[in-house]
Amino acid sequence: MPASNLNPAANAAQTITVELPQNPYNISIANGNLATIGTAMQNPQLKLGRKVLVVSNPTIFKHYGQIVVAAIEAAGFSVNSCILPAGERYKTPASIQKIHDAALEMRLERSSTMVALGGGVIGDMTGFAAATWLRGINVIQVPTSLLAMVDSSIGGKTGVNHPKGKNLIGAFHQPKLVVIDPTVLKTLPAREFRAGMAEVIKYGVNWDKALFEHMEAAKRLDQLRYVSEALLNTIITHSCQAKAVVVAKDEKESGLREILNYGHTIGHAVESLTGYRVVNHGEGVGIGMVAAGEIAVEMGWWSREECDRQNILIEKCHLPTRLPAIIDISAVVPKLQTDKKVKAGKVRFVLPKQIGTVAVTDQVTPEIIQPVLQQLASA
Amino acid sequence: MPASNLNPAANAAQTITVELPQNPYNISIANGNLATIGTAMQNPQLKLGRKVLVVSNPTIFKHYGQIVVAAIEAAGFSVNSCILPAGERYKTPASIQKIHDAALEMRLERSSTMVALGGGVIGDMTGFAAATWLRGINVIQVPTSLLAMVDSSIGGKTGVNHPKGKNLIGAFHQPKLVVIDPTVLKTLPAREFRAGMAEVIKYGVNWDKALFEHMEAAKRLDQLRYVSEALLNTIITHSCQAKAVVVAKDEKESGLREILNYGHTIGHAVESLTGYRVVNHGEGVGIGMVAAGEIAVEMGWWSREECDRQNILIEKCHLPTRLPAIIDISAVVPKLQTDKKVKAGKVRFVLPKQIGTVAVTDQVTPEIIQPVLQQLASA
Repeated sequence: MPASNLNPAANAAQTITVELPQNPYNISIANGNLATIGTAMQNPQLKLGRKVLVVSNPTIFKHYGQIVVAAIEAAGFSVNSCILPAGERYKTPASIQKIHDAALEMRLERSSTMVALGGGVIGDMTGFAAATWLRGINVIQVPTSLLAMVDSSIGGKTGVNHPKGKNLIGAFHQPKLVVIDPTVLKTLPAREFRAGMAEVIKYGVNWDKALFEHMEAAKRLDQLRYVSEALLNTIITHSCQAKAVVVAKDEKESGLREILNYGHTIGHAVESLTGYRVVNHGEGVGIGMVAAGEIAVEMGWWSREECDRQNILIEKCHLPTRLPAIIDISAVVPKLQTDKKVKAGKVRFVLPKQIGTVAVTDQVTPEIIQPVLQQLASA
Repeated sequence: MPASNLNPAANAAQTITVELPQNPYNISIANGNLATIGTAMQNPQLKLGRKVLVVSNPTIFKHYGQIVVAAIEAAGFSVNSCILPAGERYKTPASIQKIHDAALEMRLERSSTMVALGGGVIGDMTGFAAATWLRGINVIQVPTSLLAMVDSSIGGKTGVNHPKGKNLIGAFHQPKLVVIDPTVLKTLPAREFRAGMAEVIKYGVNWDKALFEHMEAAKRLDQLRYVSEALLNTIITHSCQAKAVVVAKDEKESGLREILNYGHTIGHAVESLTGYRVVNHGEGVGIGMVAAGEIAVEMGWWSREECDRQNILIEKCHLPTRLPAIIDISAVVPKLQTDKKVKAGKVRFVLPKQIGTVAVTDQVTPEIIQPVLQQLASA
């Protein structure tokens, strides 16, 4: 459970440690953190070599490339950059080859570092390129979206998509450091902000009741400008703390870490069945949490009242709570069978027992799922 | 140092354990081992799921595919196979995509297993495909060349080539089990046998004096048919034991493991400068050991007499001891700068101090290397 003293004054710098036995690392959270990243990289404990490759996309690099490159160069590193087109459809083995070509061009050594400056796509690809160059070089995650800050930049899951499935190709490769500068969220599109909020609500339900209640107390959560600096700080630090604790206990997802998939079983199916064009990942997770909550109520695991509180919070973020109209509902259950987390042919669900506590089960039958999906069908 | 009781009766089954703290695994060595691989895979400690993908090349699969597939199926597993063209030039990201396509086709799960049936190329590629499918699934190595048996199948180095450099793309991914059946060497071409002997001599010089002396005592070593079953058994078990001990102490090559690169610094440069067509890996290592030995003598690290004993053993295997005539000698030193093991721009050499003992240094200057290369130039 998160420490109760984790609700600091707004804007105070925070460091959260992911306490992995082999390779512990810090998540540094502070306004203005991008401008001091070079100093952070000089920490001798990190043992970073001189060469640094910054990987980003054109939009992010236009906003933040100069400040990051200048900060790293000022700290005495030699920096090149590799700019990849933005978007999930470029999260492919071909993009990894481009990063590797840049690595070869720069003659990156085993002690060299890749810096992922961007959202989840850039983070996943850069992490995977670093995992597979010279059998693993350093990577520093500098997430610029809320979703990447609270989720994908922490925990070492890296990878790209196979033409027939998301994230099927990848590796576990922990970063050396995660550098979060909440001020960059001001350039994040509102829809992306809301997508990140879905993962934050996830931590409220599967881990951190206090975080859930902080968000319940807010008036509006659908755009960054309605969120106070103190609440934003709570959102980021509590989420990172939750992720850090879970990952430290189960790096390779052989047990506890599975709870981080709350909302993701139906969520992934919805993303996939809409061709990754209609619903983004956070929106999928939002719909998935509503579905998982209703299944938990149906199975007697969760109270109707708490499930409603969850759904109201999801609605407050202006996240969808119903299945997109274009989805063929009968295709959802078969799609679940192709989930990466299927074990011995059985689909696994993370279901709430109370706000802050979930459990994993493979006992959810199509007979339970189907009526819930009908109920969530768009009117 | 290897245990002195490691010289068993010919043909006795042997098990050597790679004692990694996180993921220890066994190397099983026995004549006829291919036919019983299914039984070995049933060991509940391995926790292997039902699905198995056997990866091989057409030549090897023609000889041994049926026996391996039948043995695995008879043990209750569901088996598919993926056959890739033979040869180092197919060790590419494109081949990894083919293995991944086969994995998708078969819907391999996180508990599923890839079996690498072949030499070093198949082993490296299958290991890397397994390392990067669903962020890491099981792999079992079934090496069919001497080089793969004593070296590449053990220790978890996996990967493919970048168009501009060998093994630049890869990951560490330990196998669950290594299954060695020495009888398969009867179908190995003589030149491939000799290439494997280069790595065996390496273990004699960098680790195991007893192994070195066993080989010195043999009359001929240039073809398998001149090697007694007892000596072949000693060669395989001592080599595997050396590799297992070194890897267990330094899984990710941050220290001790570097000694396994004895002969590889100049060796890699020679392979590369001849376009990987004139000199194979073992032959490159043979030339590289002669060069490293002469450098060690030049620097006062090693006695002339022991260096000569090494060179005689290399010649006894009919391995080349001189640089190929087509090499431009002045290109060798610049080529060393592109070595994967360069640290802070300095080339690292493993040099013998006595038979069975080596040390690593970055103090070998071009002024020392150049005359040795001249001396090794073809007449």
